[in-house]
Amino acid sequence: MNVFTLSDVSNQEILEILEEAEEFKKGKEVSYKGKKSAAFLFFENSTRTHYSFEKAALNLGIKTQNLEVSTSSVQKGESLYDTCKFFESIGSDILVIRHPEENYFNQLDGIKIPILNGGDGTGNHPSQSLLDLYTIKEHFGYFEGLNLAIVGDIKHSRVAHTNYQVMRRLGMNVYTSGPSFFQEEGYQYIDFNQAIDKMDVIMLLRVQFERHNNQFTLTKEEYLNQYGLTIEKVNRMKKDAIIMHPAPFNRNMEISDDVVECRKSKIFEQMKNGVFVRMALINRVLNNE
Amino acid sequence: MNVFTLSDVSNQEILEILEEAEEFKKGKEVSYKGKKSAAFLFFENSTRTHYSFEKAALNLGIKTQNLEVSTSSVQKGESLYDTCKFFESIGSDILVIRHPEENYFNQLDGIKIPILNGGDGTGNHPSQSLLDLYTIKEHFGYFEGLNLAIVGDIKHSRVAHTNYQVMRRLGMNVYTSGPSFFQEEGYQYIDFNQAIDKMDVIMLLRVQFERHNNQFTLTKEEYLNQYGLTIEKVNRMKKDAIIMHPAPFNRNMEISDDVVECRKSKIFEQMKNGVFVRMALINRVLNNE
Amino acid sequence: MNVFTLSDVSNQEILEILEEAEEFKKGKEVSYKGKKSAAFLFFENSTRTHYSFEKAALNLGIKTQNLEVSTSSVQKGESLYDTCKFFESIGSDILVIRHPEENYFNQLDGIKIPILNGGDGTGNHPSQSLLDLYTIKEHFGYFEGLNLAIVGDIKHSRVAHTNYQVMRRLGMNVYTSGPSFFQEEGYQYIDFNQAIDKMDVIMLLRVQFERHNNQFTLTKEEYLNQYGLTIEKVNRMKKDAIIMHPAPFNRNMEISDDVVECRKSKIFEQMKNGVFVRMALINRVLNNE
Repeated sequence: MNVFTLSDVSNQEILEILEEAEEFKKGKEVSYKGKKSAAFLFFENSTRTHYSFEKAALNLGIKTQNLEVSTSSVQKGESLYDTCKFFESIGSDILVIRHPEENYFNQLDGIKIPILNGGDGTGNHPSQSLLDLYTIKEHFGYFEGLNLAIVGDIKHSRVAHTNYQVMRRLGMNVYTSGPSFFQEEGYQYIDFNQAIDKMDVIMLLRVQFERHNNQFTLTKEEYLNQYGLTIEKVNRMKKDAIIMHPAPFNRNMEISDDVVECRKSKIFEQMKNGVFVRMALINRVLNNE
Repeated sequence: MNVFTLSDVSNQEILEILEEAEEFKKGKEVSYKGKKSAAFLFFENSTRTHYSFEKAALNLGIKTQNLEVSTSSVQKGESLYDTCKFFESIGSDILVIRHPEENYFNQLDGIKIPILNGGDGTGNHPSQSLLDLYTIKEHFGYFEGLNLAIVGDIKHSRVAHTNYQVMRRLGMNVYTSGPSFFQEEGYQYIDFNQAIDKMDVIMLLRVQFERHNNQFTLTKEEYLNQYGLTIEKVNRMKKDAIIMHPAPFNRNMEISDDVVECRKSKIFEQMKNGVFVRMALINRVLNNE
Repeated sequence: MNVFTLSDVSNQEILEILEEAEEFKKGKEVSYKGKKSAAFLFFENSTRTHYSFEKAALNLGIKTQNLEVSTSSVQKGESLYDTCKFFESIGSDILVIRHPEENYFNQLDGIKIPILNGGDGTGNHPSQSLLDLYTIKEHFGYFEGLNLAIVGDIKHSRVAHTNYQVMRRLGMNVYTSGPSFFQEEGYQYIDFNQAIDKMDVIMLLRVQFERHNNQFTLTKEEYLNQYGLTIEKVNRMKKDAIIMHPAPFNRNMEISDDVVECRKSKIFEQMKNGVFVRMALINRVLNNE
């Protein structure tokens, strides 16, 4: 069983994963006692996804191996398939992969151990979506009818792409907002400033300078003012509404300094929940083998 | 007890190591229960040797430390000896080293903990030879009289250098083949195309672009055609003959895509066996302390 | 409880830490049985501090995570605070940080898990000072009245800065020496050559080329001759006097080759002691939570 994209995972399965994550958060212990091992293959920069997955594996008593890409045979031109096949051959029980190529996993059909996708280019980021869903469900208790705005760089965000699909499927009303050069066809655009007081969840996205190639024409102050979340905007949010961000965040660009740890912000709670969601994911795919 | 080169290891000792590797493959468990620790010092790119050794240590319940060379004091000019002496001082029980300098281990006389050589420049690669031997013995049951051709970049290959010596010592007929600019004195050259149907083992080598400095004058297609292994050539191989490659491999250069996982190919089985051979090696040197 | 600088640690507390380190050296075992985890955030090159702290954690049965800075979200501009807050969020129990910025820890007030400082710019290096103190106490049995000369690059050395303060506080007479361009206000300079036979401890410092910007005008030979320790100078040392160096060292610059492992040298013993001191430090801050 692989988890490459949430398109393949039913609503029912998603709810089961969230339920098990909740049990882990409440203290359920599962230990593979060092009898299983996981390999982490991160071909793109990552802190949260990489070390959260690693922490999840460690919590489950799973041994871990971290491929240091810059000193691996990838530098000798080895293909992703061959690198994965190597880890399968040495007895790894599960792979977690992040790779800059969208749908990289299409070339991994021949790999027989479970693979969890830690992000593919601007495509999918299933474990991030699951932890977002967990955080929403933990706060509201349900998904149906909630209004959520994803704000910022929709075009380059695998988080936006994945969340837009799965959250609508779970009954949420999902809107997007952001500057025109970040927009993409097929989304429901709204004016962020006008919609703030109607949203239950405001999900900010990082301005990903590394993917922009000079398309970005606003100053930091202009962006914060137009599309960022300031404490003035927070004060216009619904009483029970929450703020989310997949992080890392640019302080005082998409989010002002004093909003990061304000009462409505779930940003660090998302990180906390990420470990439990990933424990549930790993446990699930290992049990399905 | 160190393992720098197989020249120091007798035939009898080699057979003992292969025997213990077989026991590990059959499921024998040995655990040091976290009471021993290994440090991995890889000064050259590696996937297989590094992570296979690490997996072997983890399987044996040994704690592991990976020196990240690029952020270590090596960058401040620290010598290899001093780096090794540090790991000895903090209580490491075993070192595994890969280093670009041939015979780097000659400067490590003063180190008192066992060292396993993970490859020195174009010199030795004992654990690779041992896993090659294991794979041959597992398939044929014996070494005496087997015909083996090592094909490709003999000159820059520590695998070729090590295997040529040890396999002849074990009674095999070892031939080499490849373009003239890859040849080296003192080997038994044959015409690959003519010899294919007489070989029991065809061992391909990677074209190591990173060591060539423009000496390489063939196109990928020319190399594949003249010295690479295509499915047409595979069909001319002896019924029971096998294909080996230390990997990583250049697909469609020294080996065509459809040969990599064909029935005769032992390439991924070699990787699998590598872990058991390295478990045997580690266990042996720790028991000899 | 954090340990950023020894200024915050009383003499009494220092002696307690050294005492527990001694118990660890004598074989005391403490195991957290994998229930605690530590994250290592090293933003500057390090071998000794990084892997010694890691070994200490492993010895205590603590799970470890190593942030690979070059492939982390730090590359996306994430602040140190936000990176630390992430590790706190995923359930790390302790952080060990080295960072090029002096007093980087002043920005980490909001972090709620204990942090151990593995070196901040040219500021502090508390665990190094503690292992130096341990090594001195182990040899002499006391601090009061001992004469110690720190020789070399005082200006850029966090070891010198930290040791100068804490060793005087413990009753030692601390002197410094070295070329004028390495001097700094507020220290007691002496002529190294004249003072050699009066010192109980000679503590050499590494010439840190990476911090010098062309200020360094001596040849290797000139430095060794004037400020380095040669076997001729060693022969003029007091009978019971010892040689120390935080390492890595430049052989034949601040210390000649034949002095590194001479009878008086405690250099590798310092490294050995470093693990026990760091076990005591980690154990102490975890027990104080």
